[in-house]
Amino acid sequence: MTTPPRELALERARSHRDDDLQDLFTLLRQPSISAQNIGVEECAVLEESLLRDAGLSVRRLDAPGHPVIYGEWLGAPGKPTVLFYGHYDVQPADPLELWHSDPFTPTIRDGRIYCRGVADNKAQHFSHIAAIRHWLKANGSLPCNVKIMLEGEEEVGSPHLDTIVTANKDILAADLVYTSDGPVTDDRYPEIEYGVRGLLYVEIEATGANRDLHSGHWGGVAPNPILALARLLNTMIDDENYVLIEDFYENVRVPTPGAQAALEKLPFDTAATIAGIGLTEMVPPADRSYAERIMFQPTLNIAGITGGYSGEGSKTVLPARASMKIDMRLVPDQTPDEIWEKISAHVDKHGKGITIKRLDGGMLPSFTPVEHPMGDIVRAAVERGFGTVPISVPSAGGSLPDSVWTQTLGLPSFLVPYGAPEQANHSPNESYRLERLYQGIETSIHLMDLLGQG
Amino acid sequence: MTTPPRELALERARSHRDDDLQDLFTLLRQPSISAQNIGVEECAVLEESLLRDAGLSVRRLDAPGHPVIYGEWLGAPGKPTVLFYGHYDVQPADPLELWHSDPFTPTIRDGRIYCRGVADNKAQHFSHIAAIRHWLKANGSLPCNVKIMLEGEEEVGSPHLDTIVTANKDILAADLVYTSDGPVTDDRYPEIEYGVRGLLYVEIEATGANRDLHSGHWGGVAPNPILALARLLNTMIDDENYVLIEDFYENVRVPTPGAQAALEKLPFDTAATIAGIGLTEMVPPADRSYAERIMFQPTLNIAGITGGYSGEGSKTVLPARASMKIDMRLVPDQTPDEIWEKISAHVDKHGKGITIKRLDGGMLPSFTPVEHPMGDIVRAAVERGFGTVPISVPSAGGSLPDSVWTQTLGLPSFLVPYGAPEQANHSPNESYRLERLYQGIETSIHLMDLLGQG
Repeated sequence: MTTPPRELALERARSHRDDDLQDLFTLLRQPSISAQNIGVEECAVLEESLLRDAGLSVRRLDAPGHPVIYGEWLGAPGKPTVLFYGHYDVQPADPLELWHSDPFTPTIRDGRIYCRGVADNKAQHFSHIAAIRHWLKANGSLPCNVKIMLEGEEEVGSPHLDTIVTANKDILAADLVYTSDGPVTDDRYPEIEYGVRGLLYVEIEATGANRDLHSGHWGGVAPNPILALARLLNTMIDDENYVLIEDFYENVRVPTPGAQAALEKLPFDTAATIAGIGLTEMVPPADRSYAERIMFQPTLNIAGITGGYSGEGSKTVLPARASMKIDMRLVPDQTPDEIWEKISAHVDKHGKGITIKRLDGGMLPSFTPVEHPMGDIVRAAVERGFGTVPISVPSAGGSLPDSVWTQTLGLPSFLVPYGAPEQANHSPNESYRLERLYQGIETSIHLMDLLGQG
Repeated sequence: MTTPPRELALERARSHRDDDLQDLFTLLRQPSISAQNIGVEECAVLEESLLRDAGLSVRRLDAPGHPVIYGEWLGAPGKPTVLFYGHYDVQPADPLELWHSDPFTPTIRDGRIYCRGVADNKAQHFSHIAAIRHWLKANGSLPCNVKIMLEGEEEVGSPHLDTIVTANKDILAADLVYTSDGPVTDDRYPEIEYGVRGLLYVEIEATGANRDLHSGHWGGVAPNPILALARLLNTMIDDENYVLIEDFYENVRVPTPGAQAALEKLPFDTAATIAGIGLTEMVPPADRSYAERIMFQPTLNIAGITGGYSGEGSKTVLPARASMKIDMRLVPDQTPDEIWEKISAHVDKHGKGITIKRLDGGMLPSFTPVEHPMGDIVRAAVERGFGTVPISVPSAGGSLPDSVWTQTLGLPSFLVPYGAPEQANHSPNESYRLERLYQGIETSIHLMDLLGQG
């Protein structure tokens, strides 16, 4: 009896873990901060080289922003085609002083790799690349057709992705889209997510006098822009954390029965999840479950604020300006355009001397039915790769430009996070468990195997 | 008929203006930022040298913080003694990008010197030093006894001044204290201020989870510290800008009849004053005059706030902490200790996960009766130096450690600002009019002359 190709690929993956780590570390050492345009092109070149070494034919898709890398292997006519999506750009590393090791020097401590971007998203899309490479090196051909697309603008809201996908519909044609990003919600279970929340990101600025003023001569006379922002916030969110912007909830859709059923079956240990970030309870309202909050409720989060003096010691200044950044997570059927209209109308009405601007196009929420037939194959692959039955999360808390797959291409899209809850995405000391790197590579091998059989 | 000594001193001042400018520029080029301990000792050494060159005997008073420089000339027994007070420390220069020339390179444009600290307070106390020097060089002796004390911690709230004055009561004994600091309120009139508001400076920090979080996974679950600060602010100040801290106004004293009468006689052009900072109206309440606001009302000013991401572009983070700095101007008979008790009790009651700390000891408000006999001499000197009848401002908006003179030493204390309203104290592009430098020097010459005759 010959060894099945899948087993040959798995064996090769297990005997080449050091090589995989070397390649991943090269990718991690290269900063690729899209918000600040630091190292993005250099990282794109590294990704092209990795895809070529894996055995794919590689090119760049025409893109107005940071490079979009595309690789394919289409030698299995009649078999299904999977499109892997990932992003090689990362968040800024600040606040730098809170990192225990340099953010761009990958460091292994206690079975984890610490580095900015390791979890979000380098180690995760690298798992697919490694799976393809091991299978091709072990067997010479893949069991299904494979496409992979890596973009460099995800962390700034993927402003050009829809344009690029629309322009390349034929090249990207597939039977399903498969994305590994973000952490699972509960460390005990691998999970499959069938949708994501959308995103709108705005910056609000308040201005007062024509210059910073001495507080003793002007306090109580000239307006304080920091106070103006605080007052505006209090017109936007109530004590129970409901958003007060008019009609903000107008298009929030009641989940489908299937989504609702999946939600209710979720085995989340909320107390443990909350304890993981050092808290003992969630913010109000008390009557809403953790899962509901991050799946079917929109949020308005203040991501940053700055104004006046915040250095050492004291400075008695009445600042001329202050600003804050706000991100809103959107659920079906909210849209960034609709919510932009509503929040900007709110600011115009309530904020004297206050202006709002939209920092990017935002992202639509996205949704794939839990019942889609491709879901069976994905669930089986994840169960084999992780050795545990996965849970079905009807909608993820975070945002990805997933609507380009479900709406622009009309495909089922599955988000399969290979990462763990404590990996600190977007925070200092972002990390990724070595064990999950190896489990992820094996899951991607099983996925190709099962697609080839299907 | 011999030329009077006063005229000889005035003539020398007028013929040595370039020398005075050179000396002042040397002082200005030396940064002396007390909040950050930058260049303070070096500046103290320069001040000692200036006082010695002027003809005073100079020493340092024992001080636990930055150096306190003291100079005296006591060769006129039986004549009154004036104690000049000033400070050689300056505010931080940031935001640096808003300066049109380097903040520590004095630059003359359109008849003004631009430099951090030129108005607050270097050119002003330098005027006294130059007056003493010109009189002594022209005549060999002064018409009254003169003491001068320069401290280096005024911009951080003069935390040690009361200790130092208390320990040196005999050395500092005088008939009046004379301070030139701050700008006049209305550019058309020189002014004499008979009191100052007190000060309390606090920093408030809100904390949430044990690390910065991804807003998509934790927004609406974990508390947002920026929102917590905004909510706290809204419990502290109402829409009419009244401070809501319990009993905050309890000890606000109704002004004396003399102070009230002076207030009502003030010829301020409020519209022009407000226009000077680019505004058309004052903040609420509408029924309170500009003079009342800055003289007999306490204020609560947010001097700075920081939290989360405020760099370029977008970052979807839920921050673990946020903080803000608040300064409060106090009026008779409020005290920093009393208000500290009240605001910290308020924060303890309203701010879950919020802590407050006092950044320094604060300053008591101070008050000298408008009717004090020494006031006649001061008013006459100012009228002669500036060529205009001065106005009487019963209380200045800003804060100075004036209570060490009125309460610790029990002396009348007169604040005679030589600066102009547009000089941008504490702001980028701080400046000082050359004309006012020369008028100030002549005013100080007239003051010594009139004291000698009195």
